[in-house]
Amino acid sequence: MTPPLPPAICVLGMGLIGGSLLRATGERLSVSGWSPSEGTRAAATAGGFLAHAELEEALAWAVRYDALVVLAAPLTAFDTLLRKITRYAPEVLLTDVGSVKSGVAQQVSAIVPRARYIGGHPMAGTAESGFAAADARLFADAAWVTCLDDGSRMETWDLVAGLALAVGSRVVPCTAIDHDLAVARVSHLPHLLALALAQVAELGGPLALSLAAGSFTDGTRVAGTRPELLRAMLESNREPLVDAADDALGILGVARASLASTGSLERISTGGHAAREGYNHRNDGLTEFELVDPTAADLIAIGAAGGHLTELTRTDTGRTVRGLSHPA
Amino acid sequence: MTPPLPPAICVLGMGLIGGSLLRATGERLSVSGWSPSEGTRAAATAGGFLAHAELEEALAWAVRYDALVVLAAPLTAFDTLLRKITRYAPEVLLTDVGSVKSGVAQQVSAIVPRARYIGGHPMAGTAESGFAAADARLFADAAWVTCLDDGSRMETWDLVAGLALAVGSRVVPCTAIDHDLAVARVSHLPHLLALALAQVAELGGPLALSLAAGSFTDGTRVAGTRPELLRAMLESNREPLVDAADDALGILGVARASLASTGSLERISTGGHAAREGYNHRNDGLTEFELVDPTAADLIAIGAAGGHLTELTRTDTGRTVRGLSHPA
Repeated sequence: MTPPLPPAICVLGMGLIGGSLLRATGERLSVSGWSPSEGTRAAATAGGFLAHAELEEALAWAVRYDALVVLAAPLTAFDTLLRKITRYAPEVLLTDVGSVKSGVAQQVSAIVPRARYIGGHPMAGTAESGFAAADARLFADAAWVTCLDDGSRMETWDLVAGLALAVGSRVVPCTAIDHDLAVARVSHLPHLLALALAQVAELGGPLALSLAAGSFTDGTRVAGTRPELLRAMLESNREPLVDAADDALGILGVARASLASTGSLERISTGGHAAREGYNHRNDGLTEFELVDPTAADLIAIGAAGGHLTELTRTDTGRTVRGLSHPA
Repeated sequence: MTPPLPPAICVLGMGLIGGSLLRATGERLSVSGWSPSEGTRAAATAGGFLAHAELEEALAWAVRYDALVVLAAPLTAFDTLLRKITRYAPEVLLTDVGSVKSGVAQQVSAIVPRARYIGGHPMAGTAESGFAAADARLFADAAWVTCLDDGSRMETWDLVAGLALAVGSRVVPCTAIDHDLAVARVSHLPHLLALALAQVAELGGPLALSLAAGSFTDGTRVAGTRPELLRAMLESNREPLVDAADDALGILGVARASLASTGSLERISTGGHAAREGYNHRNDGLTEFELVDPTAADLIAIGAAGGHLTELTRTDTGRTVRGLSHPA
């Protein structure tokens, strides 16, 4: 069974994620992309893809083919893109691959209230960027968040989840805010810690840098991300990231005080090791399930329990999903 | 020219580092090792190495061949080993591969004051451990710290530096305390941050763990280290690590306050990115040098400037070193 798929997709922004999506779907769907960069358009055209130079043209194409429009540009460009969409394609099928979800959902409902929108976030990426790094296999086995709440249009969710499944991802349904709280801890905080670590090492001078090895290079890799992209991501998730930073400051502060006073790092060492082991074993005990005509709440419960969907089929009355989850 | 080498080496502890040292030197030096583990001794014997079951026997072998004894056991075992050494081989040639240097130097001078000791620290390792993971190429292109101060026995330093060069490392001369201050920032703090990050993610529950991707796994990899080994390393470098943790808490605290109040992460984003770029370019402008009969202070200045030695030859009057460094 193939999952439900949109008739076509139109990717706005053909960087690593947008370009990879074109490469992953170009053989079975009608696809096109837009980029403001002439070099990117030339590379996409050379790759056999239809590349629009004008947003209006891209959106007219999307309307003509009832395409799912995918916002795959940096978060900072979303406002401009959404204003064009509401003018040229106000009822379009719409998703995005942005790394925050509540803020984008608010933007969409404020600027393009009639769009048929479901937010998404593929948890995939590499240190590389740009169309040249695009890879049809980028999404394979990665988590792809699809946002849901009680008011979601399930027919649109089918298409976004179907697209994610079609490119090999496991679909994680959750609310926008639950997504933002989760990524604050597992993605945004690691970026903040990497930035701080790079600066603390720099304060150690040339000798410190010449002795840096695996633990430093691993711990600071993501500090290499372009600052304006990093800021757009982290600052868009302000409150959840403040909470995650407070938890980190609390744990580190207690450890620092213990080290200074008693000399012991027992608590953070055993607690941190156990937490990392817990991560290693996060999928232990996942079991298969099937749900017929699940509600949004049913699907959200799957994601909240650490589960995901591997199959989605449309039926006359609704949908059947299969996947793996922990017993609730 | 081959560097000066000890006539033989005797490795106390045949885990990843000790075992790799045996594999890297076994073809050109007389080598033996000791391990309290029968399985490790059997593996070393099967690999063609002389493996002592008794410390007394290992130390008698070292005395007979004027071997350089290498402490390659966990830091927690050093006290016991040094007490045996002072009893059976009090004037032995001695080095260690421990991840802190001031504390070990104090232990050695308190327990084995007549040993000809130079501290060392190869900045090499993998996530694996044990003799089975030992690899003759482990030290290639890694930094190998060799400790010096005004009172150092340069003839012993020649042998330790020569051994490090012989296995392909670049030799970084520095004082024990400068080493400890540097590794607090580039090795011990990354471990502390990894432990904290794993715990903050755990607080996010199953959804957070199911969305964790590259930035989380990179940032927590070293939290997988066995807690007792981690504690021995971190707690032995107490004051430098408290200072490094204070710097990290300060930088993160300022960022947290800025995010909460103004919503901006401009300062940490640009500062952290610039620091990581500085690390990427740390070797830009390194130039070749040659020093004839350098003093300990000359060598320490090389390491402090981010430089290292690639060649060492003994002459009638002293030694000639070549390497790469930044102009002072």
